[in-house]
Amino acid sequence: MKPLNIGMIGYGLMGRAHTNAFRQVSQFFKLEHRPVLKAVCGRDGVKAAEFAANWGYESVETDWKALIARDDIDLIDIAATNNVHAEIAIAAAKAGKIVMCEKPLGMNPAESLKMVAAVEKAKVPNMVWYNYRRAPAVTLAKMIIDEGKLGKIFHYRAKFLQDWTINAEVPQGGPGTWRLDASVAGSGVTGDLLAHCIDTAMWLNGSIDSVTGMTETFVKERKHALTGKKQKVGIDDASAFLARFSNGSLATFEATRYARGHKALYTLEINGEHASLAWDLHDLHRLQWFDHRDSSLVRGWRSIHISDGDQPYMKHWWIPGVQIGFEHTFTHQVADFLAGIESGKPAAPTFRDGLATDYVTDAVLKSAKSGRWTNVKKA
Amino acid sequence: MKPLNIGMIGYGLMGRAHTNAFRQVSQFFKLEHRPVLKAVCGRDGVKAAEFAANWGYESVETDWKALIARDDIDLIDIAATNNVHAEIAIAAAKAGKIVMCEKPLGMNPAESLKMVAAVEKAKVPNMVWYNYRRAPAVTLAKMIIDEGKLGKIFHYRAKFLQDWTINAEVPQGGPGTWRLDASVAGSGVTGDLLAHCIDTAMWLNGSIDSVTGMTETFVKERKHALTGKKQKVGIDDASAFLARFSNGSLATFEATRYARGHKALYTLEINGEHASLAWDLHDLHRLQWFDHRDSSLVRGWRSIHISDGDQPYMKHWWIPGVQIGFEHTFTHQVADFLAGIESGKPAAPTFRDGLATDYVTDAVLKSAKSGRWTNVKKA
Amino acid sequence: MKPLNIGMIGYGLMGRAHTNAFRQVSQFFKLEHRPVLKAVCGRDGVKAAEFAANWGYESVETDWKALIARDDIDLIDIAATNNVHAEIAIAAAKAGKIVMCEKPLGMNPAESLKMVAAVEKAKVPNMVWYNYRRAPAVTLAKMIIDEGKLGKIFHYRAKFLQDWTINAEVPQGGPGTWRLDASVAGSGVTGDLLAHCIDTAMWLNGSIDSVTGMTETFVKERKHALTGKKQKVGIDDASAFLARFSNGSLATFEATRYARGHKALYTLEINGEHASLAWDLHDLHRLQWFDHRDSSLVRGWRSIHISDGDQPYMKHWWIPGVQIGFEHTFTHQVADFLAGIESGKPAAPTFRDGLATDYVTDAVLKSAKSGRWTNVKKA
Amino acid sequence: MKPLNIGMIGYGLMGRAHTNAFRQVSQFFKLEHRPVLKAVCGRDGVKAAEFAANWGYESVETDWKALIARDDIDLIDIAATNNVHAEIAIAAAKAGKIVMCEKPLGMNPAESLKMVAAVEKAKVPNMVWYNYRRAPAVTLAKMIIDEGKLGKIFHYRAKFLQDWTINAEVPQGGPGTWRLDASVAGSGVTGDLLAHCIDTAMWLNGSIDSVTGMTETFVKERKHALTGKKQKVGIDDASAFLARFSNGSLATFEATRYARGHKALYTLEINGEHASLAWDLHDLHRLQWFDHRDSSLVRGWRSIHISDGDQPYMKHWWIPGVQIGFEHTFTHQVADFLAGIESGKPAAPTFRDGLATDYVTDAVLKSAKSGRWTNVKKA
Repeated sequence: MKPLNIGMIGYGLMGRAHTNAFRQVSQFFKLEHRPVLKAVCGRDGVKAAEFAANWGYESVETDWKALIARDDIDLIDIAATNNVHAEIAIAAAKAGKIVMCEKPLGMNPAESLKMVAAVEKAKVPNMVWYNYRRAPAVTLAKMIIDEGKLGKIFHYRAKFLQDWTINAEVPQGGPGTWRLDASVAGSGVTGDLLAHCIDTAMWLNGSIDSVTGMTETFVKERKHALTGKKQKVGIDDASAFLARFSNGSLATFEATRYARGHKALYTLEINGEHASLAWDLHDLHRLQWFDHRDSSLVRGWRSIHISDGDQPYMKHWWIPGVQIGFEHTFTHQVADFLAGIESGKPAAPTFRDGLATDYVTDAVLKSAKSGRWTNVKKA
Repeated sequence: MKPLNIGMIGYGLMGRAHTNAFRQVSQFFKLEHRPVLKAVCGRDGVKAAEFAANWGYESVETDWKALIARDDIDLIDIAATNNVHAEIAIAAAKAGKIVMCEKPLGMNPAESLKMVAAVEKAKVPNMVWYNYRRAPAVTLAKMIIDEGKLGKIFHYRAKFLQDWTINAEVPQGGPGTWRLDASVAGSGVTGDLLAHCIDTAMWLNGSIDSVTGMTETFVKERKHALTGKKQKVGIDDASAFLARFSNGSLATFEATRYARGHKALYTLEINGEHASLAWDLHDLHRLQWFDHRDSSLVRGWRSIHISDGDQPYMKHWWIPGVQIGFEHTFTHQVADFLAGIESGKPAAPTFRDGLATDYVTDAVLKSAKSGRWTNVKKA
Repeated sequence: MKPLNIGMIGYGLMGRAHTNAFRQVSQFFKLEHRPVLKAVCGRDGVKAAEFAANWGYESVETDWKALIARDDIDLIDIAATNNVHAEIAIAAAKAGKIVMCEKPLGMNPAESLKMVAAVEKAKVPNMVWYNYRRAPAVTLAKMIIDEGKLGKIFHYRAKFLQDWTINAEVPQGGPGTWRLDASVAGSGVTGDLLAHCIDTAMWLNGSIDSVTGMTETFVKERKHALTGKKQKVGIDDASAFLARFSNGSLATFEATRYARGHKALYTLEINGEHASLAWDLHDLHRLQWFDHRDSSLVRGWRSIHISDGDQPYMKHWWIPGVQIGFEHTFTHQVADFLAGIESGKPAAPTFRDGLATDYVTDAVLKSAKSGRWTNVKKA
Repeated sequence: MKPLNIGMIGYGLMGRAHTNAFRQVSQFFKLEHRPVLKAVCGRDGVKAAEFAANWGYESVETDWKALIARDDIDLIDIAATNNVHAEIAIAAAKAGKIVMCEKPLGMNPAESLKMVAAVEKAKVPNMVWYNYRRAPAVTLAKMIIDEGKLGKIFHYRAKFLQDWTINAEVPQGGPGTWRLDASVAGSGVTGDLLAHCIDTAMWLNGSIDSVTGMTETFVKERKHALTGKKQKVGIDDASAFLARFSNGSLATFEATRYARGHKALYTLEINGEHASLAWDLHDLHRLQWFDHRDSSLVRGWRSIHISDGDQPYMKHWWIPGVQIGFEHTFTHQVADFLAGIESGKPAAPTFRDGLATDYVTDAVLKSAKSGRWTNVKKA
């Protein structure tokens, strides 16, 4: 096995999730490369060192430029806040590093376009961490769709519901709450949650032609965690849109952080001529499947427990009947990314795929302002 | 349509349920006979008259012998307490009446055997009101099993859970609580709830050879509603048993009125070589179905919503997707009973079928006392 | 009990459902009035006579004007196709009859407005058959909301999914399929299915200010059942819209007849500051309820089985734990309508409430054409 | 952090699961000790070396006695087949090693008793790998019960259903199928699956006084994987029993490998005077909870998604709303075991607890032979 030296930027939730994936993939997947936790980079050197000690990183950096400059780093993984994705990714690509970037790609399509240009010019492997494609049940959905089992698609619907910002005392800015600060996050639930829904949707159902959206900011002012001052909230708390896909199907999308009772309810459903399927992140190990071609007396929605060896990824894990967790959507992504490097067939979603999603979120935000249907640029 | 004159004995819950079925069947099922609500009989003449007025009975009797003596009565329906089933049924049969009897048939197999003898000697159509056979989902289960789709059966399990007697202040005896009085009910949950489970089980899975049971009376004394005095509780509050069916399958059965959170959770499940099915009275319009012959990637438990026209009975009702209620298990029973009279092929469960169930409950109660496996007599 | 003579116009699915409700309400609800099935009216005299015989109507009419002219008719119930609602209702009101009308009220707001004017001028009791308000679980939702348990409302979402027109061979026009003929139905799923969602939504969550919608006709041409000729389909097969309620909440609505696997999946969900609730017609006897004020360790979505006597309407029916069917949403509507006449407090939804819904569906259809947000007129 | 050197015996499924837990616990739980993967021991040196390479064990042994003899090993973990548990555990205890042992403890209570004596005499920390206690939902159930929220307990029911041996071609003996060979496994589902149910049950509901059981071997002969010859199957394919707990509650237990459609359906339910709870391994991140003290209108079974930080163990993992997998029941067990060593309060289940379970399974097997109720010895 060839070592592949990882340079991780960021040590928040996503820094942990990515690191865990790099640390575990080799035990469960047979790959040529073995990720080595070489260095973690964070502005707070003490915290970065604690993180390194806990996870087994060999070294610590406090300046990402220094990290990129190191010859012993093969792959730069950007798990930092959205506002620094572009600058880091472009520099890493220029330095010839493999680049992985947490979603969304950039703060806006203009940034994302530059990031795409940089990795494509440098011809470095690149990937955006839209991890839900690799929940086994979602991957199974993709397999079923690609076999043509649904027939013509009529409807797509997705939503991503959370409830963690209902409390008006939750601040904006700072660790844990930077997603509420527009200058750091770019947008609110549109870029954070809808982006996930859109990435999966376009993967499963093709490109989106046009959208009309609506956004709302329910809590207009929040204290900033860094300044301590109340200031206007610039992000969208809730966002919904109607869409038309290129294949003629109609869609509804919705995301919010104000849906009491839902912590991370990402659901999707597709209705085709012959069959339908549905999925729900709260029970991520199940796929719902309805096939009209079943004998009419025993036709019904099937709850497929994704735990046999036959389903995607599952032969790598434990035994039939027992579920794996959320964390392994990341493990699978690393496994596929490394396999793609090894086979020369890059795994998606690439930066260009990430740009495609950013074009949709951008169109949603624009249409929410204009009140009109907006065409989506193609990446 | 030929009128069929009904003489109803009893005006409690089952009196209402049966009457409702007689009153509605002709609007939804095409039959030669049209039930006519001719007379209701109850010891309390005032209440019986109120009941008659509400439901449209043409007349009232306070003595069931007088009812049976009437020439204008074709069918005697016994919805009275268990302790009078035998006497009434035998007299009705002797008078040449069609006889329907609420379950369980008699207070014990000895009584039930005499009832069977009476109706068979008189050659009158007869039926016991084990209504759950005719929940459409249960009937569908029977169809599936009869087609051999399950292969060899390994397991049967059923339970009937309620929680209405946890409160020790609930009295025994009297209207609404006579089921707690052993002298009126015969037994507790064994004859009341397990009898339902057993009737369905033998219909679906054949006869039971032997059982070992356990019963318990959690509240040892209760006030009697009629005397006002605390007295020993003679019925079983909870009852469970293991069983071996003649087809080699193993079974567990349980019933209780002390399962907090369940009002009428009658569930059953059958596991066969190729397939399994399950049902739950709390969602009676659904059948759960698993078929191992489905393609392995999309194999899962199907939740069949019994509301297409294709499923048993459903073409008689409304539109696909909407459920019918508990009450129509009785309507279906009347429809099938009348159709059986018309076709000359008697509909089950007959009194003899009811006796078979009584033999099982009797064996359960005996084994609970002896602590040993007990063979079940065959009806 | 005072007889209340019913004159029913139409003998299709809704004619059956309404008739069944009139025929049963007196047995289960204590009311001053007792509906009497006096006459049914239909253009096909033979079929009308069969219907009358089956349900017990005393007489038959083939001309609705003759029915309205009869002195022995107290209440005109319009269960005919949408295109004749207005004319009949206005004539019935002028004749001083109580008027009930199947939904939607008119073919368009202009018609509906005239119908409202007619019943209000004549001061006759009036009601539109938006029956889902009276599914016990939905009524319970209303009670909970009215107690203020949800706090500020952030989100409302509803959808009504069917799959019966996917087959392009289903004709338009004629019995059973007139809903596909725009000249008879007015619109497609917008007036048929979304109208239900909107009526419930405004009852639970107040008025809607503005909408932006999207419609689609997937099958562009269908044979007409009466002419036998292929002709353009004028109705919307699918319709979705975003909305803003007057209370500041955001909403998504969707209806379609192209959602494979769903026969009548009407679902709704409301997210409030403190609590959320959800309902699903496919399991109409359950309400989902989440209360954030529950202790954090045992907080979860509750599946409330609406079968105790405590829940709305349920004390009138059977026993705890057993469900009632779809049909009794109509029975409850009759019970409340009669009680409203008796108490002098008219039960909703009145014709004016029906008009309010028509203003929303009209705005949806207009915005689907214009591609812009459209304000909703208030009734 | 103090290193704690692990010597693992066995590299099958449980060897992997235990190793994974030792390898991950330090990243997620703050403990004094850090497990070090020092050596793995297996009879097949090549396979053991592959396992060591994959998981990062520093060395390999092929003789467990050699492993125990090493001074650099602190903890012996027995993940080998049941028939060698006793010998190894006793030797390890004598050598003063910390001992962890896969369940069931011994082949029979006689063996288990010696194992208990050995670890207690040596005063070494010891634990049996009954991992399901530490599914967060099950731990939450324990917390709720210990707070007395259920009141008096009336009923306990558990079952563990699988379907992997329905195919008569599945061999007995050898890797992957040694559980079908009585000489290696001791018993069939009684010791394998029911043992899990019993361990959890006694932890949650106290000791069991008496049982009556039933076992069956559906496939009487199977080829032996090592000899290639057909030979009699000595294990029980299915096992069910009735039980009485010391607290007066009644129970039903069932396990089988012939329940088509269930891969690892371990379910449990407890009904108390005030409340009930239920759990299901197929959705291990949810606990079902019903509290009769909830207001009657909104009373219902709650589906608690165990993913907030408040629930047991969950603050160590990811974010609210996302589930962890089966594998972390083992991680939690290591965390608690190490914490117990550090605090001096040994974590359960100890070997003595394992013996208690073996007394129950032994009584079940004996009663299945005798056909009589059998008292359970207390450990």
